Amino acid sequence: MTIQKRLSALRNEMQRHKIDIYLVPSIDAHNSEYVPECWQRRPWISNFDGSAGEVIVTLDHAYLWTDGRYFLQAEQQLDSKYYTMMKQSGFAPETEQWIQENARGKRLGIDPRLVGIGRAKVLQNIMSLVGGELVVLEDNLVDNAKVELGEEIRLPCAKAFAVHEATTGESLAARLTWLRGELQNNAADYIALNVLDEIAWLYNIRGSDVEYNPFVISYALIGLNQAIWFVDSSKLSAELIAELATAGVTIQPYESFATYVQQLHAKVWLDERSASFWMLQSISLSNEVLLQRSPIVYRKALKNKIEAEGARIAHIKDAVAMISFIYWLELNWQSGVDEISAADKLEEFRNAQANLHGLSFSTISGYASNGAIIHYRATPDSNKVIRNDNLYLLDSGGQYLEGTTDITRTFHLGVPSAQQRHHYTLVLKGHLALSRAVFSHGTCGEHLDVLARAPLWNEYLNYRHGTGHGVGSFLGVHEGPQKISQASSLVPLVSGMIVSNEPGLYIDGEYGIRIENLCLVTEVDDAEAKQSPYGPFYTFEDLTLVPYCKKLIDISMLSSEDKMQINSYYTKIKTKIAPNLKPELQAWLADQLDLF
Amino acid sequence: MTIQKRLSALRNEMQRHKIDIYLVPSIDAHNSEYVPECWQRRPWISNFDGSAGEVIVTLDHAYLWTDGRYFLQAEQQLDSKYYTMMKQSGFAPETEQWIQENARGKRLGIDPRLVGIGRAKVLQNIMSLVGGELVVLEDNLVDNAKVELGEEIRLPCAKAFAVHEATTGESLAARLTWLRGELQNNAADYIALNVLDEIAWLYNIRGSDVEYNPFVISYALIGLNQAIWFVDSSKLSAELIAELATAGVTIQPYESFATYVQQLHAKVWLDERSASFWMLQSISLSNEVLLQRSPIVYRKALKNKIEAEGARIAHIKDAVAMISFIYWLELNWQSGVDEISAADKLEEFRNAQANLHGLSFSTISGYASNGAIIHYRATPDSNKVIRNDNLYLLDSGGQYLEGTTDITRTFHLGVPSAQQRHHYTLVLKGHLALSRAVFSHGTCGEHLDVLARAPLWNEYLNYRHGTGHGVGSFLGVHEGPQKISQASSLVPLVSGMIVSNEPGLYIDGEYGIRIENLCLVTEVDDAEAKQSPYGPFYTFEDLTLVPYCKKLIDISMLSSEDKMQINSYYTKIKTKIAPNLKPELQAWLADQLDLF
Repeated sequence: MTIQKRLSALRNEMQRHKIDIYLVPSIDAHNSEYVPECWQRRPWISNFDGSAGEVIVTLDHAYLWTDGRYFLQAEQQLDSKYYTMMKQSGFAPETEQWIQENARGKRLGIDPRLVGIGRAKVLQNIMSLVGGELVVLEDNLVDNAKVELGEEIRLPCAKAFAVHEATTGESLAARLTWLRGELQNNAADYIALNVLDEIAWLYNIRGSDVEYNPFVISYALIGLNQAIWFVDSSKLSAELIAELATAGVTIQPYESFATYVQQLHAKVWLDERSASFWMLQSISLSNEVLLQRSPIVYRKALKNKIEAEGARIAHIKDAVAMISFIYWLELNWQSGVDEISAADKLEEFRNAQANLHGLSFSTISGYASNGAIIHYRATPDSNKVIRNDNLYLLDSGGQYLEGTTDITRTFHLGVPSAQQRHHYTLVLKGHLALSRAVFSHGTCGEHLDVLARAPLWNEYLNYRHGTGHGVGSFLGVHEGPQKISQASSLVPLVSGMIVSNEPGLYIDGEYGIRIENLCLVTEVDDAEAKQSPYGPFYTFEDLTLVPYCKKLIDISMLSSEDKMQINSYYTKIKTKIAPNLKPELQAWLADQLDLF
Repeated sequence: MTIQKRLSALRNEMQRHKIDIYLVPSIDAHNSEYVPECWQRRPWISNFDGSAGEVIVTLDHAYLWTDGRYFLQAEQQLDSKYYTMMKQSGFAPETEQWIQENARGKRLGIDPRLVGIGRAKVLQNIMSLVGGELVVLEDNLVDNAKVELGEEIRLPCAKAFAVHEATTGESLAARLTWLRGELQNNAADYIALNVLDEIAWLYNIRGSDVEYNPFVISYALIGLNQAIWFVDSSKLSAELIAELATAGVTIQPYESFATYVQQLHAKVWLDERSASFWMLQSISLSNEVLLQRSPIVYRKALKNKIEAEGARIAHIKDAVAMISFIYWLELNWQSGVDEISAADKLEEFRNAQANLHGLSFSTISGYASNGAIIHYRATPDSNKVIRNDNLYLLDSGGQYLEGTTDITRTFHLGVPSAQQRHHYTLVLKGHLALSRAVFSHGTCGEHLDVLARAPLWNEYLNYRHGTGHGVGSFLGVHEGPQKISQASSLVPLVSGMIVSNEPGLYIDGEYGIRIENLCLVTEVDDAEAKQSPYGPFYTFEDLTLVPYCKKLIDISMLSSEDKMQINSYYTKIKTKIAPNLKPELQAWLADQLDLF
């Protein structure tokens, strides 16, 4: 009934705007990985709440596109009377193809805030090709439908707060000066930003508007002599406003971005990979536009010394929380612990650490066959009790003031099978080989990915996800532009970048294995490397400092290099982590570290 | 004096055509790797004969751009009174930049046969930006200058010959049928070809017009009902003409391509990566043009079973020649052998093999410090005597009717130093690691390159060239689209592709090491691989069957995997090669293969 009512309210809106087909994407106006509740329009109109999907509503039917991870869930959640599930291969823009085939002579409505610049152009071409029209609406029709049904749309209003040079390594003033240099180098007068982690990084501010991401919903516009932050001022304390003002940052209402930019009559820089079509439209009405990647993307990826040191501090705290949890789990699983309560307990241990702002993503806590679901999220329905007869995969992380963490460990609380140990050790060997890689300048993630996969490939196994993603500094846990996967990034890994190293193996219906550390790319600084005509050379520093699962390692499969590497890693864990643990935990850790 | 006269004759031509600046590229109208003597215009006008370089002549000065490999040579060969050497970084189109800065209001002349489609557009944009004009000339002004100075321009006129299904695995008729299917799939009426290996592959013909490449200078035009070969008919026997006619291929004069295509009034497919601006101009006058990669490029890279078997046969013969040479060298260096006479002797051994058409490239025969020059070609001036106190690098290959070979081995005829053995074994370890790689579908050369470099990187060493190139079947020894290097190819390595595996290490002024085998990509066909949900998986089959240098291998550096791999490689050499050798060579080989 609910979905019928909602669709009907939306169709009223469509008719009022003379729209035949309405597009409901998943994203928000800021290209956020985590979309705030108030902007979760696709789940609201379809009832399907997987992380990826897109809806098209016509006047008599509705369609939802999603990918292979969610076919089952979508079939369960969609009401087939009103919705048809459409399968996405992940390789073709299937929604666009449907539009091309079905929108002849029709009016397709979009909210331009939710459509990127490139996509808007594609849609315009398609609609002109099929003799229809792309209608760029000022209102979001799903929001209108909500209001029509008496629901309120409440934007998040969490307090924002400043972070300072002591943890970010750079003052707001210095970052503005750098950015203005970039404007001058590119002959631009302003740059307009909608991506929330870029704004947070630039203005040295954080907030809690978005789940798992310490961001403040806002736009930013920086010119050679101005810096405007378009944000709901009720989120800001008088002190914060004053502090920003000192650096020349002035506050304007969130809603006033478009009207403000229209009176600039200048040359405005926009990142076409992330800016919305709405921004382009608003700006280009009365300004020249420079479409080019935002310089913040790359600069933000290069952690300065203070950010790197912060990452080390955050990872020490995170290791204490993780080790406390593992110890607790070994002692308590017998009395009944399930995937959800385990994740809650781990969050408690993280909360006990200083300066934890929250988790960095929704914990993946998967026992047995649930561990084989790569993007698993335990629900009351799926929740399994954790026992001692299978593997338990735990992927979690924290947002600390000093840095962002992300770690996966896989456990067995009883006696693992030979195959489980074999599989675990294959994954571990790939993880170790990547971790110890020494590589020349110019090497990108796509060049190193094979190191993590080779031990699996040799036995005709693989994992269907990338090997590593970039990570922010008390910012997004997934952050570009660098990554480690076969997909072409063309971004060389250089000093200061943080990436994850997380190979895995998933046996459908049985168990999943993943081993993940975060690593900092560092230049090799011994004399021989420094003098090499082929340098500079780089390697990874493991930030994560938590032992692997002792009983899952098949020592006979390790090379002498593997063993030396584990020994040196474990020595570091002992030195850095043991002193922070209670005596009984120290004893437990010492046993875990005693491998060979 | 010569260069002054030539420049002066060219400037006369420029003035006659009202040209201020004339561009002399290195390439010919067919994008050939080896440019026939008659079209070597840049060496003729500049006296610089390195393999890469480009000249710009103005009415009062001339400039030559070349890259780091040739700075020294260019300085020696250019007369600085008339020429300025311009350094190319290899990363920027420096000639274009010079034009942009120096051609304000000028007329820039080009021969459109020597400028690609993309480049012509760039030049047009630049010239319009600087208020000048790009003048597309019918004549080549260097050729005109030659004629003015009484020189004759004689195009190669070697005999062409047919190759048949027995060695190419596919008849000319079958290839035409396939290509016509591609035309239909792409809604094109014709495809026009200028790249000589594509024409040779398609028409099952070979020739000797081009050094090292068994090609016939020609154009081809294939339509749904026609196939025209634009070629000097004096190269063709009556039998060949009859054979081609049976398959529906008709002959037209080489010079008539442009006039012929102008009367088609059809849709013509052109590969914009290789076609010349002249082709585009000629065709687009009266036809619609489809700019898209030629389908032959990819299809040609996938060797069929007969081509793969042919490659194996060619490599057995090549191994016999190489082993005969190495044995001869060990017995004869004492009586005085130099780089050039060694290369000649090796050619003799290759010539003794059945069906050798010629060499596949200019042999690189470099002793001691000459071995460290990556693209070294011995000249009477540089020619070193090969002795027993340093390394000797030998990179060579043959064009056999059954296939193309390319092998590098590095030798020491005396007692190598510990460092030489260490360096050789590092290179060998990379070569072995790449050779034994098992990889999943979708893996490209850029993903595997690291395997060959890792042992060197671990000691802060590297080599400044790619790890592998594609190889043709009695066609070009360098053939795309696949390759193995950090440069992004985006071409997955799949069954039937041949690539080289040739890591190296070059110690400037001392010695060079390179170890090169050709390998065939093959699908792993054991039951476990076939049943894997992650398959298909691929690996490399070593086609080259010549032992590594026994005395240069430091066995203590080899892993057990390395040793097993060498053992199995050596078993294959013993089985396949030994029976083809004379008794004394068999004994020598047996000793070489006895390593562990």
